[in-house]
Amino acid sequence: MSVPYLINSAGGHISASERIPVIARPFVSERAKKTLDLVERFVEEECIPADAVFAQQINQHGRDPVSRFDAHPQIIEDLKAKARKLGLWNMFLPKNHFKEGAGFSNLEYGLMAEYLGKSSTASEATNCAAPDTGNMEVFAKYGTEEQKQKWLGPLLNGEIRSAFLMTEPQVASSDATNIELNMRRDGDYYVLNGQKWWSSGAGDRRCKIYIVMGKSDPNNPNPYRQQSVILVPADTPGLTIERMLSVIGFDDAPHGHGHITFNNVRVHKSNMILGEGRGFEVVQGRLGPGRIHHAMRSVGAAERALEYFLARMNDPAKKPFGKLLAEHGIMLERVARSRIEIDAARLAVLNAAIKIDQSNAKDALKEIAEVKVQVPNMLLDVLDRAIQAYGGAGVSQDTPLANMWASGRTMRIVDGPDEVHILQLGRNENKRGPALLKRIEAQKKKTEELFRQYGLEAKDPLALKRVSGGQSKL
Amino acid sequence: MSVPYLINSAGGHISASERIPVIARPFVSERAKKTLDLVERFVEEECIPADAVFAQQINQHGRDPVSRFDAHPQIIEDLKAKARKLGLWNMFLPKNHFKEGAGFSNLEYGLMAEYLGKSSTASEATNCAAPDTGNMEVFAKYGTEEQKQKWLGPLLNGEIRSAFLMTEPQVASSDATNIELNMRRDGDYYVLNGQKWWSSGAGDRRCKIYIVMGKSDPNNPNPYRQQSVILVPADTPGLTIERMLSVIGFDDAPHGHGHITFNNVRVHKSNMILGEGRGFEVVQGRLGPGRIHHAMRSVGAAERALEYFLARMNDPAKKPFGKLLAEHGIMLERVARSRIEIDAARLAVLNAAIKIDQSNAKDALKEIAEVKVQVPNMLLDVLDRAIQAYGGAGVSQDTPLANMWASGRTMRIVDGPDEVHILQLGRNENKRGPALLKRIEAQKKKTEELFRQYGLEAKDPLALKRVSGGQSKL
Amino acid sequence: MSVPYLINSAGGHISASERIPVIARPFVSERAKKTLDLVERFVEEECIPADAVFAQQINQHGRDPVSRFDAHPQIIEDLKAKARKLGLWNMFLPKNHFKEGAGFSNLEYGLMAEYLGKSSTASEATNCAAPDTGNMEVFAKYGTEEQKQKWLGPLLNGEIRSAFLMTEPQVASSDATNIELNMRRDGDYYVLNGQKWWSSGAGDRRCKIYIVMGKSDPNNPNPYRQQSVILVPADTPGLTIERMLSVIGFDDAPHGHGHITFNNVRVHKSNMILGEGRGFEVVQGRLGPGRIHHAMRSVGAAERALEYFLARMNDPAKKPFGKLLAEHGIMLERVARSRIEIDAARLAVLNAAIKIDQSNAKDALKEIAEVKVQVPNMLLDVLDRAIQAYGGAGVSQDTPLANMWASGRTMRIVDGPDEVHILQLGRNENKRGPALLKRIEAQKKKTEELFRQYGLEAKDPLALKRVSGGQSKL
Amino acid sequence: MSVPYLINSAGGHISASERIPVIARPFVSERAKKTLDLVERFVEEECIPADAVFAQQINQHGRDPVSRFDAHPQIIEDLKAKARKLGLWNMFLPKNHFKEGAGFSNLEYGLMAEYLGKSSTASEATNCAAPDTGNMEVFAKYGTEEQKQKWLGPLLNGEIRSAFLMTEPQVASSDATNIELNMRRDGDYYVLNGQKWWSSGAGDRRCKIYIVMGKSDPNNPNPYRQQSVILVPADTPGLTIERMLSVIGFDDAPHGHGHITFNNVRVHKSNMILGEGRGFEVVQGRLGPGRIHHAMRSVGAAERALEYFLARMNDPAKKPFGKLLAEHGIMLERVARSRIEIDAARLAVLNAAIKIDQSNAKDALKEIAEVKVQVPNMLLDVLDRAIQAYGGAGVSQDTPLANMWASGRTMRIVDGPDEVHILQLGRNENKRGPALLKRIEAQKKKTEELFRQYGLEAKDPLALKRVSGGQSKL
Repeated sequence: MSVPYLINSAGGHISASERIPVIARPFVSERAKKTLDLVERFVEEECIPADAVFAQQINQHGRDPVSRFDAHPQIIEDLKAKARKLGLWNMFLPKNHFKEGAGFSNLEYGLMAEYLGKSSTASEATNCAAPDTGNMEVFAKYGTEEQKQKWLGPLLNGEIRSAFLMTEPQVASSDATNIELNMRRDGDYYVLNGQKWWSSGAGDRRCKIYIVMGKSDPNNPNPYRQQSVILVPADTPGLTIERMLSVIGFDDAPHGHGHITFNNVRVHKSNMILGEGRGFEVVQGRLGPGRIHHAMRSVGAAERALEYFLARMNDPAKKPFGKLLAEHGIMLERVARSRIEIDAARLAVLNAAIKIDQSNAKDALKEIAEVKVQVPNMLLDVLDRAIQAYGGAGVSQDTPLANMWASGRTMRIVDGPDEVHILQLGRNENKRGPALLKRIEAQKKKTEELFRQYGLEAKDPLALKRVSGGQSKL
Repeated sequence: MSVPYLINSAGGHISASERIPVIARPFVSERAKKTLDLVERFVEEECIPADAVFAQQINQHGRDPVSRFDAHPQIIEDLKAKARKLGLWNMFLPKNHFKEGAGFSNLEYGLMAEYLGKSSTASEATNCAAPDTGNMEVFAKYGTEEQKQKWLGPLLNGEIRSAFLMTEPQVASSDATNIELNMRRDGDYYVLNGQKWWSSGAGDRRCKIYIVMGKSDPNNPNPYRQQSVILVPADTPGLTIERMLSVIGFDDAPHGHGHITFNNVRVHKSNMILGEGRGFEVVQGRLGPGRIHHAMRSVGAAERALEYFLARMNDPAKKPFGKLLAEHGIMLERVARSRIEIDAARLAVLNAAIKIDQSNAKDALKEIAEVKVQVPNMLLDVLDRAIQAYGGAGVSQDTPLANMWASGRTMRIVDGPDEVHILQLGRNENKRGPALLKRIEAQKKKTEELFRQYGLEAKDPLALKRVSGGQSKL
Repeated sequence: MSVPYLINSAGGHISASERIPVIARPFVSERAKKTLDLVERFVEEECIPADAVFAQQINQHGRDPVSRFDAHPQIIEDLKAKARKLGLWNMFLPKNHFKEGAGFSNLEYGLMAEYLGKSSTASEATNCAAPDTGNMEVFAKYGTEEQKQKWLGPLLNGEIRSAFLMTEPQVASSDATNIELNMRRDGDYYVLNGQKWWSSGAGDRRCKIYIVMGKSDPNNPNPYRQQSVILVPADTPGLTIERMLSVIGFDDAPHGHGHITFNNVRVHKSNMILGEGRGFEVVQGRLGPGRIHHAMRSVGAAERALEYFLARMNDPAKKPFGKLLAEHGIMLERVARSRIEIDAARLAVLNAAIKIDQSNAKDALKEIAEVKVQVPNMLLDVLDRAIQAYGGAGVSQDTPLANMWASGRTMRIVDGPDEVHILQLGRNENKRGPALLKRIEAQKKKTEELFRQYGLEAKDPLALKRVSGGQSKL
Repeated sequence: MSVPYLINSAGGHISASERIPVIARPFVSERAKKTLDLVERFVEEECIPADAVFAQQINQHGRDPVSRFDAHPQIIEDLKAKARKLGLWNMFLPKNHFKEGAGFSNLEYGLMAEYLGKSSTASEATNCAAPDTGNMEVFAKYGTEEQKQKWLGPLLNGEIRSAFLMTEPQVASSDATNIELNMRRDGDYYVLNGQKWWSSGAGDRRCKIYIVMGKSDPNNPNPYRQQSVILVPADTPGLTIERMLSVIGFDDAPHGHGHITFNNVRVHKSNMILGEGRGFEVVQGRLGPGRIHHAMRSVGAAERALEYFLARMNDPAKKPFGKLLAEHGIMLERVARSRIEIDAARLAVLNAAIKIDQSNAKDALKEIAEVKVQVPNMLLDVLDRAIQAYGGAGVSQDTPLANMWASGRTMRIVDGPDEVHILQLGRNENKRGPALLKRIEAQKKKTEELFRQYGLEAKDPLALKRVSGGQSKL
């Protein structure tokens, strides 16, 4: 094997499991470490080299959008077969919760997700790609046996894909109470009318099932009971994928992000998830761990960006002003800041993952929100530095950096924009305020007691006591 | 007890040990948790209220510099007695290394140091104050029995204090090979001539012993063998503390930062530490854990700044434009960003501490350097936001924030300025570059093989093949 | 003359007037250019060398606070005499408005203020120091003949100094409607009770007159008519300067920032400025040009910080790792960023000054607010880089940088904190929003017309029209 | 006309000429003001509505890359006809230099370029599009009569387009001495071999002439005399546009950025510009004003981004958490910061333009470099905030923001990456260092004299003079 996939500063090999931050090691089983090393090897040796082939196969029927979204690159199926053989399959389903998963904790899977995030094919190759992962959790947690059999089975087998349809173009979807796709009961059926966008994955021909949030009870006084989540097979009459959305110029074919209209789309009531009016429960149950997965993939993406940066720093063909980039101090500074920021971000994600593992996503609300803000901003900063080091090549198709940047940019928006998490964090933190105000007052009172006790006057360091322009009365 | 020292968002009590990040918990013994809770309580209930009394007692003989540096506030001795009674004494000396310490790991002490960092008296009250901590480590690690008996004993008992004299005003001391205080052998004695500054702690009347770096062998071809470290009692003839240095306007009395001249100062050769020419060994052995202590105190300082910020946010007397600060979104954003940055910084420090615990400071070089850059910058950002929230009160003597800012600012300079750590980090990270360049090349070759294997041409997504203005040849 | 006060990159001389940005030159008279060159020369040759002497003379009676605030350094009087002889006196009073001034426009004086901002003595030496400048404007604009004679004359002559007492510790003074010092009418007198702080200049023994804002009509339904501004001689019974406030550790003696209590302070009604209830008019008339003066002094301070930075970059005694700082790329980057930021800030201030000149401060509200936010933040960034280049010397008394940083930090708070200006700017800018929304809509309609005109369908670039999982209908 | 193209905060109209910063007004002729107002109107009423139609017509032959680069949207020709009729044609050619231009100064054209930068069609519609503008300057400045007739005439008429081929993929082109396309003399011909990329505009079928830099004298000891610039008609045999480069996912068709190979491309020696070995002269003569044009277009782009931001702030359909975005303080802060940064950037560009007008680009080196760094970074910050306000719509094809971001990102790379300008600025500024060091020394000597003169000892504020642990000797 000619790919030196694991590299230390001396050019030697340090495996992924050896690089787990010491603070996280007690939480990682031996089995997970072995799998982690396998994941890294699979990503570096199989997936990353396959990424460009995958990109090429997307154009097999033509380079126009219709053709690109009809493509199904063969290489991804071959990678899936390899992954499955290696036992790298469905690692995302958290242990103790789901018998269908590989039995890893969120922390353990998080460590693996970092490596998956370095390649554009690795997540799908191991059946760990969003939005299927979150959707499978929904089925596993809330699905009826019938729903599970029909959809979860094929999803777990990587035979079909799925989409989660929540965001709508005409409202401020960052506040989910605004979601308004009309979901009207008509006998044993629900009739859906409205539109969805950012339906990620809907472009893929293999995407067979949509999980759809809509408003079934618009007049419910509790705004968190107005919405429901229902299953809509992709071939249900009345659905049209009007167009795909671009992400800073990228179409993300064949997966893509669909803008879909619903025109009297009828689905049987047995497709309802968890029950009418329980849409928020479903959505919230779905989001926590997924944010950790995203975050760890972003950490991996940042590591890959830094690797590209370091490679360019040492490219003997690129010597502006007679020196390697690596000999320019302003470049070394950027490398160092990237190193610091990536390592700090990783620890934050791992801590959040452990918190979820030891309790649940709801209890880890703060940690997840922190990570949701910190990580994508870190990733974009690291990517920006790497792009700048590459110059023209950095913004072009010749490195993966530009595409990574575009994807990274959406991370500040999806699953709640930065601002929603920031204000939530700010408000939660602020709840301590009144008690802290009291504590500081109590400490000041204690200080006054101490002054008395020591026979001192609480004199200001710059006390003057100058009376009406006269002398100081000290 | 009227000080509600432990506060959660509901106004209830969550102890320090309960707030240990989940990822760090496996590394903390039950004994350390108990001590940690004691530390927090001691800091919040005893030390913070005492801070202002201490500040007042510094002026007991007068508010001019000479008087302030002659002061010895009684309250610090009373706090020391209380601390010792509570078993809160010398917690910094890492377990397994020193029988004299309290038996905690660097991680465990780090958690405690966070709380010590919230008060200006707490570190000294528990005999955990710099530079004595590092100096005691020097004695414990490298001292002869005689040296230990004479100096380490009293230091461990909090009877005397000490200073470490390294930096010199006339050279770029960030590069320690430049240190040039003349250290000439004369029979059984060394004669010292030159000057030192930033001799922290030298202002204190109880500071009895200086550990001094000087150049004993200026012509040694190895620049790391030219310096030695020697003990100089503070009352040795020829020493003059010329002046104290201010830190952004603060004199830090009675501790202070001295500018000291050496005029034919003679010390016996038995005062040499570790042996002539081994100064770098001493210095490097001293620095690692100390940086972790500083960093955790800075995390604590940042927490306190945020507490002050939150208190002000909710001060009913302060309503610009009819609303509490807590009702202004731009303030909540700053609170949230502070929360994110503090939590990320803490995890980075704890990880570095564990790395030291499991190996040593040298192996944790990267982690320590990261923390050395990340933490003080974080602290200054958090402090700046808190200061801004307080307006005029924030820059004045009415909150501890301004003084904390000044101290925090020096953290970007002492023990190596940011830039030294950044360039070292950058260069170390860059060592991976050539191997990464090779790996990326190998991955590209593998991609080419795959193209052949799949019978594809490696066509660029935007291939055009337009020849001399004619048609595309695709 | 041994001070090479005007330096270009070749070591030659370029005068201040030659360095006026080309864009500002049409606004500067020949007379102003000559004065500007004189100002630079006076500052570089006389004032900057005098700064350290002034600092020393403050301690002439002792280094404790009471003594420092009793000091009156002789050198400032000698500088004033020199300045007056050179015609450098009262340059701040804008032409066309006041016969008492030197006849310069705000732009012209702004250019001079930049140089005054480089020295701690220059502004007072030329009788252009705050808060006297703003106070003299108040007298000149709103004073009765009697008030002018009694106070404006001596102020213009530099015989006395003055203070403006507005901010109060117990309320959020950033919103001036909160100002509440009680101002009760009692026959021909007003009786004042309450407290003021940040009474800048009040420490100086020569400060003879306070201009005081208080609440005379607390029940007026118009919150902008409740306050009045009245004159209070500093020797009026009932006044006590309780203490001076420190600015990040500096006492700014002998000038200083007073915390003053009013205990039944009686002043005759003839001391009222402009009339009862017109306090806001007075305050607003006072603030605009003063902010420009502050801003230009800050630009000068930033230039001086950069000069210090550049000097250190080339100090042959300071060679960390064998190279001058000037040979380190990360330092050159900081120099370049400082240069860019200073130059941009200067242009913004000059543009605002011209706007005031051509109209008035009210019309230049946007420009002044922009400058109020931009300039102090720029100054602090430049200072921080310079401090970092100096290491320990940068935070100590050995350079002016630390003191400049402390002063600069207050600029983000005084005359309205950043946040007040930011929200005001944001709200004003946002007023354009609804009209812009309409405009964008109108442009979209026009686009639709064009589509029709060209016989095109408005097809999305990624249109798909895939119906219910079937083929695309494009 | 239904497009309310000029909007003030009250919804009324303020024309572009009225919005010229006061500081720039003396430099703008009445004729330029009238043209400026025409430009704004043309951009807002004609070009912006046409942008989407242009985008649609690019797909007229198909949405694959080959077809998109074969497109020639009719609407651009119609806009050109309209612009010419309005007299809005070739405004970029600076007055006094070129009889062929519209007779405006760089400042005046800069003001117009701001508005051109708001639309993707406006620059080409007025024949002011890069790279033709710079190329026309090359012809006008350095072209022979024959070259002018053949190429400049049609370019000035907007009949053909052109490209400037400089950057090469295999070297660090940010340092132009690395350019190495082989240019071998063979009788009356030059034979060119090698490759170029980022050949912007080469995709357009109407691009008929390439201006090509290559190495004609690789052994010349003066590295600035090795290169030449020669004309190569686009239909010369041996040229192949291998592919187009994408810019963060955008192909910028039909203009585009070509990767072109040269395989024994023969051109007659009469095609040489200025003479063999004078390539650097040509390149440098071309760059200055063009950077100003780019910068002002970027200012316009930033204004448009802010307009979009403000529109979204007030979109009644988008109310996260029950409030318009305009009611959220953290959004107002971003609006305000954008306003400040745009206004500061504009002044910097205008000042640089005037400097060029009054002297030349070489004398304005500093000002141009400052702007080259400041403006694109400002643009990206403003765009990022606007994108974030739009959420998903912001990164998609539904607003122009994503495409603007991609273009803006390249501005930090083209015409020299940030780092080249930063280091050049830093080094130039640093040249003042040694003289400043001397000046500061001289000022310190003067201070010493003053101390003597006043009979003072230069005592440090914190002088202590404590000798060997004894009493202070003060």
